[in-house]
Amino acid sequence: MSSPLLPDGLTRVLHLLARLPGVGEKTAARFALYLVADGRDTCRALARELEALAQNVRLCDQCGNLAEVGQDGRAVCGVCRDSRRDASVLCVVAKIQDLLAVERSGVMRGRYFVLGRLLSPLDGIGPEELPLAQLVHRVEQDGVSEVIVATPPSVDGEATALLLARELGRRGIVVSRIASGVPHGGDLEYADQITLGRAIDGRRKIES
Amino acid sequence: MSSPLLPDGLTRVLHLLARLPGVGEKTAARFALYLVADGRDTCRALARELEALAQNVRLCDQCGNLAEVGQDGRAVCGVCRDSRRDASVLCVVAKIQDLLAVERSGVMRGRYFVLGRLLSPLDGIGPEELPLAQLVHRVEQDGVSEVIVATPPSVDGEATALLLARELGRRGIVVSRIASGVPHGGDLEYADQITLGRAIDGRRKIES
Repeated sequence: MSSPLLPDGLTRVLHLLARLPGVGEKTAARFALYLVADGRDTCRALARELEALAQNVRLCDQCGNLAEVGQDGRAVCGVCRDSRRDASVLCVVAKIQDLLAVERSGVMRGRYFVLGRLLSPLDGIGPEELPLAQLVHRVEQDGVSEVIVATPPSVDGEATALLLARELGRRGIVVSRIASGVPHGGDLEYADQITLGRAIDGRRKIES
Repeated sequence: MSSPLLPDGLTRVLHLLARLPGVGEKTAARFALYLVADGRDTCRALARELEALAQNVRLCDQCGNLAEVGQDGRAVCGVCRDSRRDASVLCVVAKIQDLLAVERSGVMRGRYFVLGRLLSPLDGIGPEELPLAQLVHRVEQDGVSEVIVATPPSVDGEATALLLARELGRRGIVVSRIASGVPHGGDLEYADQITLGRAIDGRRKIES
């Protein structure tokens, strides 16, 4: 696709678009052709908005969610600014997408803390690579009484949850873990054995 | 996704990205989060390159391929500028992607003409909606002796090919059509009946 057939500017856009997650050369070419042939207004608007995005949006200073940079040069996200939120409950997630997913559930009334990564010995990510000091600082500053660990129920996610429980537990903070089990609408027949084992281990008494 | 949870700037980028072909809200959110969290350099570079793209690249004045706008305000693409190309053969395609596909085959040594659309009575696209005058002008200007119609072997593509054959044929131009048949590596067992019918109709004598 890098033949002189296409203008250089288009090839450069194509290579940049191919860096997007899940986008290969062919999809990038489709995007680039759309932007230059049918979506010229989108192309201009996107150029402008991406510039503004790079300038004005960065990770929240307090929780790692996305935030607009204020006039004072600080970035505090919508959740951290919202005074109606319960400051005593802090939900720890691995990444921003997970924060958005938890938020969509509508159940979480506290605030968040985005780790940005999980403990992963195989990838050389040990406890020192996690923002534990910032988390402890946040917990102490806000007078958090319960930390809900919403890392994924994977090996890395569980290891991270155990680490957090140990580090925060010794400071007298209640650390809880989101439930793992058969998903809503899921079929027991098709659930894998670990999920089913966890569903049974995590059973709750039905109040009658 | 348009909760106050996300900065407005990010939501605007997300909506623009969702206009790309085949991209929905979820994929757009993934792209936007990547650009603001992990790919800030990509974000800045993309902003710059898209701006340049909107400014400097438009459809070639002669063939409808993509071309960089020159200092004289004209846009002539790499193929039309290439004097080693055989000006007597013109390949007519429906869209730019098809031009790129034909070019990748490496067989076409002539130039191109992009129609931009196909005859489609059902969608209200009649002969007047096609750039026939420009095509005739191009053919006469370049002294083209053969026009290869590489529109897709669909109802609309065939109708367009017949129209072009009539319009150009009456001007004494040889009009040919790309072959339709079982694709290379294809299985006869799984070929649809129209394709197989065409493959038999379009059979060629084997020279021994």
